[in-house]
Amino acid sequence: MEKLSTQPYKGTRDFYPREMKLRNWFFGKISDALKTACFEEYAGPMLESLELYAAKSGEELAKEQTYNFTDRGGRDLAIRPEMTPTVARMVAGKLGELNFPLRWFSIANMYRYERPQRGRLREFWQLNVDIFGCDTFEADLDAIRSAVSVLRAFGADETMFRVHINNRRFFNDVIATIAGTDAETGKRVSKIVDRKNKIPRENYVKDMKELGISDEQIEQIDTLYSMNVKDATAICPNSVGAAELSALFDALEKTGLSKYCVFDFGIIRGLDYYTGTVFEVFDEAPENNRAMFGGGRYDNLVGLFVKNTGISGVGYGMGDVTLENFLVTHDLIPDIDADRTKVLVTRFDDVPLEAYTALVDALQDAGIPASVFLGNKKFGKQIDYAVKEGYSHVLIMGGSEHADGTVKLKNLATREELTLKKEELAAHFGA
Amino acid sequence: MEKLSTQPYKGTRDFYPREMKLRNWFFGKISDALKTACFEEYAGPMLESLELYAAKSGEELAKEQTYNFTDRGGRDLAIRPEMTPTVARMVAGKLGELNFPLRWFSIANMYRYERPQRGRLREFWQLNVDIFGCDTFEADLDAIRSAVSVLRAFGADETMFRVHINNRRFFNDVIATIAGTDAETGKRVSKIVDRKNKIPRENYVKDMKELGISDEQIEQIDTLYSMNVKDATAICPNSVGAAELSALFDALEKTGLSKYCVFDFGIIRGLDYYTGTVFEVFDEAPENNRAMFGGGRYDNLVGLFVKNTGISGVGYGMGDVTLENFLVTHDLIPDIDADRTKVLVTRFDDVPLEAYTALVDALQDAGIPASVFLGNKKFGKQIDYAVKEGYSHVLIMGGSEHADGTVKLKNLATREELTLKKEELAAHFGA
Repeated sequence: MEKLSTQPYKGTRDFYPREMKLRNWFFGKISDALKTACFEEYAGPMLESLELYAAKSGEELAKEQTYNFTDRGGRDLAIRPEMTPTVARMVAGKLGELNFPLRWFSIANMYRYERPQRGRLREFWQLNVDIFGCDTFEADLDAIRSAVSVLRAFGADETMFRVHINNRRFFNDVIATIAGTDAETGKRVSKIVDRKNKIPRENYVKDMKELGISDEQIEQIDTLYSMNVKDATAICPNSVGAAELSALFDALEKTGLSKYCVFDFGIIRGLDYYTGTVFEVFDEAPENNRAMFGGGRYDNLVGLFVKNTGISGVGYGMGDVTLENFLVTHDLIPDIDADRTKVLVTRFDDVPLEAYTALVDALQDAGIPASVFLGNKKFGKQIDYAVKEGYSHVLIMGGSEHADGTVKLKNLATREELTLKKEELAAHFGA
Repeated sequence: MEKLSTQPYKGTRDFYPREMKLRNWFFGKISDALKTACFEEYAGPMLESLELYAAKSGEELAKEQTYNFTDRGGRDLAIRPEMTPTVARMVAGKLGELNFPLRWFSIANMYRYERPQRGRLREFWQLNVDIFGCDTFEADLDAIRSAVSVLRAFGADETMFRVHINNRRFFNDVIATIAGTDAETGKRVSKIVDRKNKIPRENYVKDMKELGISDEQIEQIDTLYSMNVKDATAICPNSVGAAELSALFDALEKTGLSKYCVFDFGIIRGLDYYTGTVFEVFDEAPENNRAMFGGGRYDNLVGLFVKNTGISGVGYGMGDVTLENFLVTHDLIPDIDADRTKVLVTRFDDVPLEAYTALVDALQDAGIPASVFLGNKKFGKQIDYAVKEGYSHVLIMGGSEHADGTVKLKNLATREELTLKKEELAAHFGA
């Protein structure tokens, strides 16, 4: 019979124990940092109604970038490509019971139908952090603060990353002021600016001109890309977006976060649903300088589900692959196996199995990871097994030790070996 | 515009923070118990090639019970309905590097296309535990031992659950001995026995007779359902399965596990791939007496991927809903929020935001969950918020406290309130 392939589906990953340990370490760090900041964890289903994405994430993402199909009941479904529509649905579903403002996060897997490439897989895990029910800059500040806390939890500092911040409302007002564009044209300008670093300069200029932006206006817009927030906001003093930006940067300064942040007029964020503050976190490493993740404010997303809720949101998503690249680049991944106690009870034929499982029980009851070697290999092979599997110690109990109630404990790192009474075992490990 | 539904897709669940806390508590307990038994965690992709399930899980499960579709590259895919084919694929994929025997587990979500009913949802989470590369009863013993450890970790004892154990090889030998059936007929008999408790007695008898089993033989088989392992194995003294059963039950006795276990000739397990020991764990509660989960030995599953590996496996899967029902039935779910410190820093208009975020920083840096109230509600409303969100304490710093560098700390449970210097805060919580 034809053998099946052992490869995972294209663009997905198998997590063997080694990779899984790393993943658990990642997610544990993130989760601890966010819980310390009083964010609460939630989760939603992998399958959602396709319309959830068609409605707000843009047609492209919904139809082309998702795995979608119709179930036997005729429902159009998609494997979630992002978490935001799900969390907006959940918030809308319990508006009456929920206690706003909410600080929520989730760490969940998503699927996007795209050509796999560095940092962009078809199945990826993503941290999603959102604050619902606070309209002021304070929520934007708290969201950005949480992103900084997460990166700092891994030992990252201001030399390693930078939060680039802009404001959609402000962007539109500035473009309108400079080029006299209407809302729709302003939106199309934003799409071009969003692609700015991905396309040649001449295409950028050509696209802008097609929207009626003159060379002079293009130059004016260019100056904004390197402008600080004070000079930029001065261009539209009466813009609501400008006021939001000023308040946010003032608070970043006063709360000690400004060293991690910078104003960047070129930050747009692709998704249509952002309305105010938008930000992207960049890796500052020269060899890896790129946007790692980002987010922003989407005031009317919950409104898709319930009429005039007035529930606003601000949040961001961070992919696991991007984070891993960042940590590797900055050498922030320690030996997560170091000084971990794990005891293998080795076996000899002249001692009954139950004598060995009794030792395992004593250690496990004391919370010390322990197991008995399965099978009957030679002693040397059992030691090899223990070393390969990352056991820190082996217990040795031959017929003579069994007879006089002792065991030999060997530390595989130091090779130190000592003889203990069985009842001293757990205590030896401080349990 | 037509509003979208806030309901999750039929048969799936939203996990709001309250449910998520419970889920994390569940999975944390399970994970700790298994890691203490030296099982290592792994994970695989949600999407797998459909043939993985068609090949061994039986046609029904693969075609009817899975969500399956074809991707744009013409690949037939399924959202995984179970983990075993994935883990077998992963083991086969790294045969050379892996260090056998392996003790592996995963806690992952699965999708099955079926009519949602109590304890059977379309999206569910399942613990999967497997041991690969040990052919003897010792692996079966270790797998059963781990299942008992997981349930005991929640405080369950032998009055609450029982492991019902049988052996496929033994079953086939017994049926052949009693009814002279060939292997194929024996397999069909096992399907009927597997349905025994789900169909009326007359159908059971009718189906057996259609396979040429006589009334007398049916009666003989009936006696086995209440027989102990000694009497049962005596029927086929030379059966390999009988020897496996005897060795397993002898070891269960000697290692103190027999009080949790019982021989049960009626245990088959639906899936085709089991070859030896099979077991099901039953809830002993009269009002909820039913099989909760089970597993068994599948010696040739890795062989689907690689020729003559000789890698055997034994494992089981446990669904999250079933486990939750069990814990609720036996009142084994504690108040997981009890004595959890979480501090809300309340605000007054006459104190600047940064004075409050400084308090939050001090607490968070000491690892104490803390946050500042977002927005400017009246003090009473901020207290209500803290209570509803499960904060244990609120910090109160008005203009006067701010001026003399103190804060009031109020314990929301005891209503006790005391005044502290700012720098004493973290220390007060033992940090």
